Amino acid sequence: MAKRQFETDAGGQDVATSVLEERPQQEEATPVEADAARISRMISQLGRIGGGNDGSVSRLAFTEDERRAHALVGDWLGEIGLTVRADAVGNLIAELPGSARSSGWIGVGSHLDSVPNGGRFDGIVGVVGAVELARLLIARKVSLRHGLRVIAFAGEEGARFGEPCIGSKAAVGLLGPRDLDRIHDGKGTTLREAFLGIGLDPAAIPAARWRQEEWSAFLELHIEQGSTLYREGIPIGVVDMVSGSTRLLIDLQGRADHSGATPMHERADALAAAAEAIVAIENLVRDPRHHGTRVTVGYLEVEPNSITTIPGRVRFSVDVRDIDHERQRETALALLRVTQAVSEKRLVTMRVDPLADTAPSVLPTWLRGLAVEACRNLEVPYRVLSSGASHDSQIVNTLVPTAILFVPSREGLSHVPQEWTSSADIAKGVEVLCETLVRVDQVVDP
Amino acid sequence: MAKRQFETDAGGQDVATSVLEERPQQEEATPVEADAARISRMISQLGRIGGGNDGSVSRLAFTEDERRAHALVGDWLGEIGLTVRADAVGNLIAELPGSARSSGWIGVGSHLDSVPNGGRFDGIVGVVGAVELARLLIARKVSLRHGLRVIAFAGEEGARFGEPCIGSKAAVGLLGPRDLDRIHDGKGTTLREAFLGIGLDPAAIPAARWRQEEWSAFLELHIEQGSTLYREGIPIGVVDMVSGSTRLLIDLQGRADHSGATPMHERADALAAAAEAIVAIENLVRDPRHHGTRVTVGYLEVEPNSITTIPGRVRFSVDVRDIDHERQRETALALLRVTQAVSEKRLVTMRVDPLADTAPSVLPTWLRGLAVEACRNLEVPYRVLSSGASHDSQIVNTLVPTAILFVPSREGLSHVPQEWTSSADIAKGVEVLCETLVRVDQVVDP
Repeated sequence: MAKRQFETDAGGQDVATSVLEERPQQEEATPVEADAARISRMISQLGRIGGGNDGSVSRLAFTEDERRAHALVGDWLGEIGLTVRADAVGNLIAELPGSARSSGWIGVGSHLDSVPNGGRFDGIVGVVGAVELARLLIARKVSLRHGLRVIAFAGEEGARFGEPCIGSKAAVGLLGPRDLDRIHDGKGTTLREAFLGIGLDPAAIPAARWRQEEWSAFLELHIEQGSTLYREGIPIGVVDMVSGSTRLLIDLQGRADHSGATPMHERADALAAAAEAIVAIENLVRDPRHHGTRVTVGYLEVEPNSITTIPGRVRFSVDVRDIDHERQRETALALLRVTQAVSEKRLVTMRVDPLADTAPSVLPTWLRGLAVEACRNLEVPYRVLSSGASHDSQIVNTLVPTAILFVPSREGLSHVPQEWTSSADIAKGVEVLCETLVRVDQVVDP
Repeated sequence: MAKRQFETDAGGQDVATSVLEERPQQEEATPVEADAARISRMISQLGRIGGGNDGSVSRLAFTEDERRAHALVGDWLGEIGLTVRADAVGNLIAELPGSARSSGWIGVGSHLDSVPNGGRFDGIVGVVGAVELARLLIARKVSLRHGLRVIAFAGEEGARFGEPCIGSKAAVGLLGPRDLDRIHDGKGTTLREAFLGIGLDPAAIPAARWRQEEWSAFLELHIEQGSTLYREGIPIGVVDMVSGSTRLLIDLQGRADHSGATPMHERADALAAAAEAIVAIENLVRDPRHHGTRVTVGYLEVEPNSITTIPGRVRFSVDVRDIDHERQRETALALLRVTQAVSEKRLVTMRVDPLADTAPSVLPTWLRGLAVEACRNLEVPYRVLSSGASHDSQIVNTLVPTAILFVPSREGLSHVPQEWTSSADIAKGVEVLCETLVRVDQVVDP
């Protein structure tokens, strides 16, 4: 009965802070399994940090709320017995040493930030799952040759700064101090200012860079954020490819004027231009040749945004996702051309700010194969699929071989308060993660 | 030299508050003309209330700033010798009695509120012009049979509440206490709350209603807000018709979701739907049958407005203006039909909130004829034209015969910081206004 209560707990219940306090006697007596109730409690507690009454979470990258979430997870990992620290960009790193000192680390983790008005599972499931994995390993007295590093990356969501995966990019050397002034949020706050605001030292970023020889593999558990597993009733997805993402901020400058006194043919209406461009951009990917390409205009601001004034300026974002890099580039270029043509026709000037550009990733087949073996061994149904969403893992994979495991998302909904995955599904994901980890430990650097 | 300085003063100079202190000796000695420098100073002083550094003014309806502007104009009128009061909806009324006690009042005035980030002339010119007119009448010792009422209406701009001409509607009985809870601004503040916030008594609104038998005529001086007079180099426009305006708030509810993980065909993108609707709405009025109709989407808000989330909800305004009432109705209906069709196709639900609906007005020919005679008598070039913008006068005209005089708007720009009319043009407008007033005084109720 207690389990059911936690399962549906949307964050309103008062639950214990410590994950270790729960039922210590039972754990010694019975076979230790991934504990859905414990997972549910951790998700509820994290959901309260930056959480709204509607189940939403707004825990943006490089904010105090993100720091609080990292601190809470650090406390849990410390209680379990791991050594916990934060690196120069705010990534949390918790270590459980292996038996063979010479072996590289195997990393497991995800991120703790969210989009504005997002959900409680994106990223969280991978961190909470890693905490539960570490607990299982210790409780089961599993001895790994490789050391385990639980990682909670900082600033994975690009929603605030346009640039996604900031923590993991710093870790693999794809982001350095010179990027701190270039990257800024919608309010004009630079990444440097955000760092200083939460006590991070911009000058120390190079120290956060991982050395390739220290690492053996990285595993990430994540919600699918699409509807394939949910629709097909399959509990585990093994990811073969991750989409790339090209993000642009388009700024259209027209001429504000009176809505009543200005004839239609004398207007330079920035919103009418944006609307025509948005329709044209969507049409670009409607042909069969673009099957699988996704374009989204998620952000749009109008100035002066008054009922009786013709819009003088509109800024909007475009996010192009594709698992085909060539097509991703072509789509981005084509949408700029079509927007330029619309702007010229309407006497509106266009400026473009490239926010971020990540290439699609093919994840290593051999590591994926170990995850598939783990599913088969545990008799857990699985399917191989590609990821439409970006993940820290695709960045990590540029330095360290990486695998991603998906658990189902209800209705495929993500980045919304309705985002939901059952704790039973997450627990099953943790079991597969554990089984995969054991196989990686046996296979890599034998 | 002093004149030139005031002429170009954008609000940064410190000028005297009193309009009466200026050159009292000269006024007695020389023929009294409408004084461009005095007009310029008044416009500058008003421009500082709610004014920005870029020359913009954001002095929204029923705010403390609007009250401050009314108080300043009240001070000026009191100094000239008029009896000043505010009515229950905040309209300023200043009286200069006439010689024939039994005659009705002749009203002259406009409004003092602005759109967000608007200009310093829309409305202001008509109030400042009326102040200068009153000064001229007294200085010239003109004896009118009718009493003169200078009016500064409250809340003319519909930008804040959607509903325009609130002060004048209350005056003619088109707006009552029951409308106070229906009308609300974008932040959800009702008109009742706004009234209470600035010390107006909602229960007293009926007391603000004018009695038709007390009035003889109303005259409004205003900037054109279009480019006809400016382009043709004509100083005075005499208005024959005023466009009607139908304002709708359209609310599209789709489904927020992840921009990467959600295939194009599984989306219910509220912004894509809005964009297609905006293009379709614009196309509706592109045919020759709609020559003269204007539609504007000036306000649009996206939720959650995040780069990586498909927009779940979009709200946008549509403002339909026409001098043909039948065509105005048809256009509003057609745009709702086309938006409904787009919404259904895209699995988005549509809700419509009718914000305001004002019919086009034909102003009385005989009164317009007196204004034309005034121009001819003063040898001031004029042309008859219709008004695309709404004005308090079209509301007043439902109760009291009304005339509108236009002065040129530079480049036709209005509702923007660049809005500008020279003080010399305004002074010329005041002279025509004065000549028209004298003719009305002679002709009406002889």
